[in-house]
Amino acid sequence: MAELLRGNAVIGQSGGPTAVINQSLVGVVEGLRAGLHQSGHVSRILGMRHGVRGLTKGELYDFTETPADKLERVAATPSAALGSTRDKPDAGYCQRILDACRKHEIRYFFYIGGNDSSDTCRIVNEIAAAAKYELRCFHVPKTIDNDLVENDHCPGFPSAARWVTLAFMADFMDNLSLPGIKLNVVMGRNAGFLTAASALARRREHAGVTDLQALAEVDGPQLIYVPEVPFDIDRFIADVESIYARKGRCHIAVSEGIKDDKGEAIGGKLIGGQKDSHGNVQLSGSGALGDQLAELIKTRLTPAGGKPPRVRADTFGYLQRCWPYTSSVDSHEARMAGRHAAKLAAEAERGGSITIVRTSKSGQPYASACGRVALAAVAAKTRLMPREFLTGVNNVTAAFIDYARPLVGDLPQFERL
Amino acid sequence: MAELLRGNAVIGQSGGPTAVINQSLVGVVEGLRAGLHQSGHVSRILGMRHGVRGLTKGELYDFTETPADKLERVAATPSAALGSTRDKPDAGYCQRILDACRKHEIRYFFYIGGNDSSDTCRIVNEIAAAAKYELRCFHVPKTIDNDLVENDHCPGFPSAARWVTLAFMADFMDNLSLPGIKLNVVMGRNAGFLTAASALARRREHAGVTDLQALAEVDGPQLIYVPEVPFDIDRFIADVESIYARKGRCHIAVSEGIKDDKGEAIGGKLIGGQKDSHGNVQLSGSGALGDQLAELIKTRLTPAGGKPPRVRADTFGYLQRCWPYTSSVDSHEARMAGRHAAKLAAEAERGGSITIVRTSKSGQPYASACGRVALAAVAAKTRLMPREFLTGVNNVTAAFIDYARPLVGDLPQFERL
Repeated sequence: MAELLRGNAVIGQSGGPTAVINQSLVGVVEGLRAGLHQSGHVSRILGMRHGVRGLTKGELYDFTETPADKLERVAATPSAALGSTRDKPDAGYCQRILDACRKHEIRYFFYIGGNDSSDTCRIVNEIAAAAKYELRCFHVPKTIDNDLVENDHCPGFPSAARWVTLAFMADFMDNLSLPGIKLNVVMGRNAGFLTAASALARRREHAGVTDLQALAEVDGPQLIYVPEVPFDIDRFIADVESIYARKGRCHIAVSEGIKDDKGEAIGGKLIGGQKDSHGNVQLSGSGALGDQLAELIKTRLTPAGGKPPRVRADTFGYLQRCWPYTSSVDSHEARMAGRHAAKLAAEAERGGSITIVRTSKSGQPYASACGRVALAAVAAKTRLMPREFLTGVNNVTAAFIDYARPLVGDLPQFERL
Repeated sequence: MAELLRGNAVIGQSGGPTAVINQSLVGVVEGLRAGLHQSGHVSRILGMRHGVRGLTKGELYDFTETPADKLERVAATPSAALGSTRDKPDAGYCQRILDACRKHEIRYFFYIGGNDSSDTCRIVNEIAAAAKYELRCFHVPKTIDNDLVENDHCPGFPSAARWVTLAFMADFMDNLSLPGIKLNVVMGRNAGFLTAASALARRREHAGVTDLQALAEVDGPQLIYVPEVPFDIDRFIADVESIYARKGRCHIAVSEGIKDDKGEAIGGKLIGGQKDSHGNVQLSGSGALGDQLAELIKTRLTPAGGKPPRVRADTFGYLQRCWPYTSSVDSHEARMAGRHAAKLAAEAERGGSITIVRTSKSGQPYASACGRVALAAVAAKTRLMPREFLTGVNNVTAAFIDYARPLVGDLPQFERL
């Protein structure tokens, strides 16, 4: 263990916002106030406006005296209260971050975010070490994609998964009422966890089923396609055709990041999608993939001289990540992760990435705790759905349902006639 | 007043489902059980599977003995439990409906739906009268579009408006956190009520403001475009440009049914959209309008040789109409409307369309009651937003906020730093 440092603390939020990222922010603030601020080691608790971008510009919010009731209201508000950023700092940018830390006498650096943000945290930590500037850097996990390694799951995912579950539950009832082929595109560029959560919408969970005849009888999405399983267009059409022929309807969950067997995004392939600021094909904030898949189904399933089937696509878009009503497990864990980072700092830990660890076994009442790993263990790595969660075709396994079910909270019970 | 008839009753659900259409269904069932069934006039209470289509095929559900707790669970389930239909019966179809009524000895006909469904109800009523078959036909209102005449508002609208409000509240926080131009497409082919409900998302309600400088300061959608106001593309771009130049972000609500000054749908004009089964341009279940408007903004706002602004579009799609968590006012009124129809039937009323009447004045605690008008007064008519609800440009008035605010229920309070 090292000595405790004296100076100020700064907290930032980065990447796509979530419904509970402010819980983590407030968790760090209250943890610091009860710990390092109380003990006199931290004088001011600062927030970066729009992540490291605000830090370099000196755009800081002072949390040191913020009333507790205001903090509670911030914690319960979705999206990043400090503002977020997608900046990936290069060497010059990192130097400006370090200059800002020196200027504001920052000795504790907390960064709440996903893969890219954990990498920013790691780089800041390394630059500071190289410059022999003592800085304790902590990464607090956050991502609806659930794709951070070393974590059982990531704060933000349970609430987004809850929203996706509710959306599929409701939309399946809609599809029963006015039958047709309905396809919903869910967020997730590389990891399919959020799309897979659609399986929680099923009244009778047909986890593990691969037989199309059995899948046709599923309540909820009958077909689930995630980026981890190579997407074959002909196979997809055959799946849809088989279920539609049996039931006169078909309900489908598709991840925005589905890829072919060469790893090429179907979105980019079908539609030559727009590129975002990182040169990635823009997947969210556009209905193009859903529309193209719907068009494809319509074209391929129209009998010669016959009427095309009713096909509709919805792209869930940004609503998935910031819906005001969260999973209570998620709100709790996001707060806990923030507090844990502050607690480690008060214990003179040199830094690291906070993790969420499941402490209950399958079948037991759900329980979790926080852990810590080295920044480099998490930074810029992507966790994909493990094989045991996927049938390898178009469905999830019972193991995935066991994993995800406790996270999303109580669901409404629907009745059928 | 006429005599009470003896026979069976049948109930149908028609058109796009809503989150509370089953409340109306259960309201009719329980109203009949406590009234005409209790008194021995109605023997069996039947439900049509998929509206008049199921009736003609003899696909009926018998509610006469359904346990009350099951009915309560059905009432709390979104979407049409009996199944819905978009069939618009022609003369031959109507004859088959009448034949089915004779066959099943139906004397009371209840149809829950919107404009088209009320017209079906009117036609069935007329065909029966022409055939001298005594049939009492009641229409129970339902539509998230809120476009039935003679109603203060329609069951289904308050819950959809609540969902849209929550979506804009959350999405605005998202937009503050990662600024850019964000456009959300809301359901509504002819009437803009649901899109206008986005204004309820504003923390400080800038109702009635038309000045762009003032609109730029609005929390929530800064610009609102509805079908009632001719959509001018150049004006739209100028609006967005002005707000984006001031704030570096812009949050926009657009109705799927926006039209130019000749009444031509912008969707059809920009994209040559798909036609649905009625020959209308398909607006829902496609992200095309949002994507095209986003592309238009990107193209027109990119400075020469400069970087395009970050523009994203979400199309809210089907989730608007069947979200499991409703407005409590809506659930209550939908149930009340169903009960009222059964009550009128028990009072030997010959038929009609149930209406929702607001009995409170502006500023008073909200209260409502049911009324009745002739079927022909409502059938196939479309109510648009009145002039007093619109600034005539890109905003709603304080009168609209007064009108809509009590319908959506309590909203979460967001905090800002």
